[in-house]
Amino acid sequence: MTATFDLRLATLSAAYTAGKTTPRQLILELRDRAAALNGEFNAFIHLLNAEELEPYLAALDSRSPDELPLYGIPFAIKDNIDLAGIPTTAACPAFAYTPETSATLVEQLIALGAIPLGKTNLDQFATGLNGTRSPYGECRNSVHPAYPSGGSSAGSSLAVALGICSFALGTDTAGSGRVPAALNNLVGLKASKGLISTAGVVPACRTLDCVTFFTATAAEASQLLALTASLDPGDEYSRANPAWNDGSAFGKVSSFRFGVPSGLEFLGCPESPALFATTIEHLQALGGEPVEIDFKPFLEAARLLYEGPWVSERYSVAGALIEQQPDAVLPVIKAVLEKAPGTTAVQLFRAQYRLQQLKAICDRIMAEVDCVLTPAYPRPVTLDELHAEPVKRNSDLGYYTNFMNMLDYAAVAVPAGTMQNGLPWGVTLFGRAFTDQYLLSLADALQRSTEIPLIGGQTITKPAPTHPARNDQARLVVCGAHLDGLPLNGQLKQRNGRLLEATHSSADYKLYALAGGPPFRPGMVRAADGGAAIEVEVWEIPSSELGSFLTGIPAPLGLGKVQLADGRWETGFICEPYGLEGAVDITEFGGWRAYMRSQR
Amino acid sequence: MTATFDLRLATLSAAYTAGKTTPRQLILELRDRAAALNGEFNAFIHLLNAEELEPYLAALDSRSPDELPLYGIPFAIKDNIDLAGIPTTAACPAFAYTPETSATLVEQLIALGAIPLGKTNLDQFATGLNGTRSPYGECRNSVHPAYPSGGSSAGSSLAVALGICSFALGTDTAGSGRVPAALNNLVGLKASKGLISTAGVVPACRTLDCVTFFTATAAEASQLLALTASLDPGDEYSRANPAWNDGSAFGKVSSFRFGVPSGLEFLGCPESPALFATTIEHLQALGGEPVEIDFKPFLEAARLLYEGPWVSERYSVAGALIEQQPDAVLPVIKAVLEKAPGTTAVQLFRAQYRLQQLKAICDRIMAEVDCVLTPAYPRPVTLDELHAEPVKRNSDLGYYTNFMNMLDYAAVAVPAGTMQNGLPWGVTLFGRAFTDQYLLSLADALQRSTEIPLIGGQTITKPAPTHPARNDQARLVVCGAHLDGLPLNGQLKQRNGRLLEATHSSADYKLYALAGGPPFRPGMVRAADGGAAIEVEVWEIPSSELGSFLTGIPAPLGLGKVQLADGRWETGFICEPYGLEGAVDITEFGGWRAYMRSQR
Repeated sequence: MTATFDLRLATLSAAYTAGKTTPRQLILELRDRAAALNGEFNAFIHLLNAEELEPYLAALDSRSPDELPLYGIPFAIKDNIDLAGIPTTAACPAFAYTPETSATLVEQLIALGAIPLGKTNLDQFATGLNGTRSPYGECRNSVHPAYPSGGSSAGSSLAVALGICSFALGTDTAGSGRVPAALNNLVGLKASKGLISTAGVVPACRTLDCVTFFTATAAEASQLLALTASLDPGDEYSRANPAWNDGSAFGKVSSFRFGVPSGLEFLGCPESPALFATTIEHLQALGGEPVEIDFKPFLEAARLLYEGPWVSERYSVAGALIEQQPDAVLPVIKAVLEKAPGTTAVQLFRAQYRLQQLKAICDRIMAEVDCVLTPAYPRPVTLDELHAEPVKRNSDLGYYTNFMNMLDYAAVAVPAGTMQNGLPWGVTLFGRAFTDQYLLSLADALQRSTEIPLIGGQTITKPAPTHPARNDQARLVVCGAHLDGLPLNGQLKQRNGRLLEATHSSADYKLYALAGGPPFRPGMVRAADGGAAIEVEVWEIPSSELGSFLTGIPAPLGLGKVQLADGRWETGFICEPYGLEGAVDITEFGGWRAYMRSQR
Repeated sequence: MTATFDLRLATLSAAYTAGKTTPRQLILELRDRAAALNGEFNAFIHLLNAEELEPYLAALDSRSPDELPLYGIPFAIKDNIDLAGIPTTAACPAFAYTPETSATLVEQLIALGAIPLGKTNLDQFATGLNGTRSPYGECRNSVHPAYPSGGSSAGSSLAVALGICSFALGTDTAGSGRVPAALNNLVGLKASKGLISTAGVVPACRTLDCVTFFTATAAEASQLLALTASLDPGDEYSRANPAWNDGSAFGKVSSFRFGVPSGLEFLGCPESPALFATTIEHLQALGGEPVEIDFKPFLEAARLLYEGPWVSERYSVAGALIEQQPDAVLPVIKAVLEKAPGTTAVQLFRAQYRLQQLKAICDRIMAEVDCVLTPAYPRPVTLDELHAEPVKRNSDLGYYTNFMNMLDYAAVAVPAGTMQNGLPWGVTLFGRAFTDQYLLSLADALQRSTEIPLIGGQTITKPAPTHPARNDQARLVVCGAHLDGLPLNGQLKQRNGRLLEATHSSADYKLYALAGGPPFRPGMVRAADGGAAIEVEVWEIPSSELGSFLTGIPAPLGLGKVQLADGRWETGFICEPYGLEGAVDITEFGGWRAYMRSQR
């Protein structure tokens, strides 16, 4: 199949604005396209008919594309997420119910102008990573018929990959939003737990579940996250998004450190090792420095998910049905859940203690890098392999995904190559909670670097972001008593500060020794003329700790923007002019260290 | 008993420095005092003998009081916390073991110069709030023989209240560090979970346990917390202390809002209501504004602790012993734990979901106040009442304490009155996690305000702190586009900013309309002369969000210190002098709003 569609958010918005099409016209066309493809792909459990679509279309009649950021954007909803008035099945007809209201996220998207096209097929109760575990039919891969779509968000990945929707909602407890993304040449964003509301979602593991976005590009996922991440009083697992992770954090990446697991596992795949090595090279070319990390604690956390008591969470959703109507649930799902009822609270507490130990270990590893790169899965598996060994081959697909929510990290699956048989191949970038937009910046840069054709056949031509990407760390330029080893440097170390570079300011600054002290302090003042390049250090400290550092700084000093020798502007020490009374111009020393040496 | 001792940290340090006594002399005296009192109070399970004390004393021989902040300070250790070479019993002889190494915290304290005097009695397995549940004898109250010491950290409270130690270590899962503090005229600090290492502590509920300090004064508890709060790689539940909660946060409180529960419960106590009302008045006199809060969700969380599956955590510690040697465990403890084995993982998950719901509700309430004030317990109970109804009367004592760790709040018990029969009476101040030092500032102010005699009979004469107390919020002075309703105000609202006051700067500032825009921005510059009072607003935003706000500010603006009309200096916008090129002096307008109106 040669794809020739382009439903990207910006493209579609431009088409609406230019009057090339209308939501009503496009959505009904896409609905027909979905119906035509569904026989082969089983992507949709329920496609909205014209009557069901009409209220959403009518709501746009009096609005313009300029008013609503998602005006007329078609999206698909995994069928474990509520859409008002349409049955939610979780791919189990006996479980189905018809919700009166939509999930919080669905409501948000509709309010922004997006149009729900239908409810998509999934591995039953979102338990699976392959897309074959459904009474509504198997989901084959969008590119290669011998492979599955991946799951459990099977139909949602297909809805986007087949050009039916601009984006789709999945869920991801163990990898369900990432594995199908990688198998279908899509970006799959599993944001930090709690950023996207899960109110109105059938739980798999309530403590772990995330709702995900499937998109063609990382830039679109960034836009969708920025539009929808908000604290939902209706979801007790919802968390506020720190402002350092808002949409403005998405930007251009420069130097960064990325972890690469030691002892990579490819399960014998002949192509994945080289594809992965190439991806590392792409990240290096983008300014990344690979750092080998111990991956064993991550893998141990992953094993807890299905081998430990977390299966009880799934059982608490489907258990009553299994007990009352054993035949209503697929045998493979029952097999996964059957050990749950015997698990005791003591066993669960002990497993939670072990998870906490592993998280402490993994967090220390994560503190040393800006992100980690892994393959999305060791190797793809064929439909035949899945039929022969449904549990084992499914597990193979989760090798690099199962630990993510257990350890509370953010992750994004990104297309990163193509197998010789044409099957898409992907990687995962993951990082500390609330670094989602930073990960998306990296994913965006990777997509631009690899130039892998998008699902519709295009490559990305939208200009790259120019402002710098941000994560949960802030850079800070220091020029005086906070320099490495000097009396106030402990204020940075106490905050887990890390020296990034010793450099100079641009040649526009005067340095003064201020009156008073100890501690003796300089004031660095940008000057119209007579300035020089001053010795400075750039430190990195957690953004959450920068505020208390700032409030501890006495007048006349403060933090503003300082220009460095290479032209960059970074946050750093500035000095108010009135504070120069009684100060001595020490610019000639070129820096505080040299001046202090001269005073001995 | 008329107390006439003064073992406060500063007093004792001063005595050592002045050569009035030596650690060897004092510690051996105190050891004798403890032995003499133990027949009546059963405070110690094990008192170190001279030989056992010698290594700790010898280690100080070559050191001076100036070098070690806790030089020669005697402390007691609850007997569920390890001291190397001495049995840890948890008040259950059959459970006892002799650890080779001390708990992390004990090691920290010894390294700082403190001397462990002994291991103290407790309610068995720290399960109880009264101090009578021990095979090592009941602990009576330090002041009134008809009352219990309170527990479970019974002996530790007595060790301080009886003038044997300067401070003592307790543990607190449900209130064990707060109830005995209030009953014995002590400060009991239950710091935020994870701030003080629990490595080397016999768990009660591993996910909830805290180690606590008993001291005569809040200022001492502040000092001990600042010395010991640190991330312990040996404790997977350890958490880093944000810098806004370090020792420098302890200071002078000014205006604040304190929650007061609706529907206060005193269980018929004739004296507690008036004592509590008086405490409210004291806080009001300190600048506090009482705010009624809905207390039901807190109480529901409290009930989950003993009525829900968290009992399984306790069972996972003592269960094996109960099964093998039923007679080794006190009947009342067995009665508490007996329902645990039948609890399933599904039940635990469901209880955890409910707790998460309650926490979300309580967190919204806590976001609106700086702290909450409650009685330490509804009413004290006598030993006779406890003997008659051991479980019910014990539960009475936990009414205001059981929810604290379930909801992850910090708490400090503070003496706040005396019953007519001489029994000490106390309150609890609690707040959001990582506001410990702020709560201690309030406790310190309350102790100074009530002037209740300390355990040794003294009142506090140490000068009150002068620098302002800090919590997890930062104040920010804005003067331009961030003013309420102006174009950039959303940056504050996005961060949960709250307008504290509309006021003016001191009359020392010039205001300039900077070149460029939109957004149009002013620059406020402190001037030697020709300045005026400029209209400003003071906002409060979470300290953790201030960093990302700062990094988003473009040159030539920055954040430094701005003086307000009343003389205070607060963090606020400043402007670098070079940025005034092309700017217009608009000081005459008195503020940005007036200037902007003039431009319409």
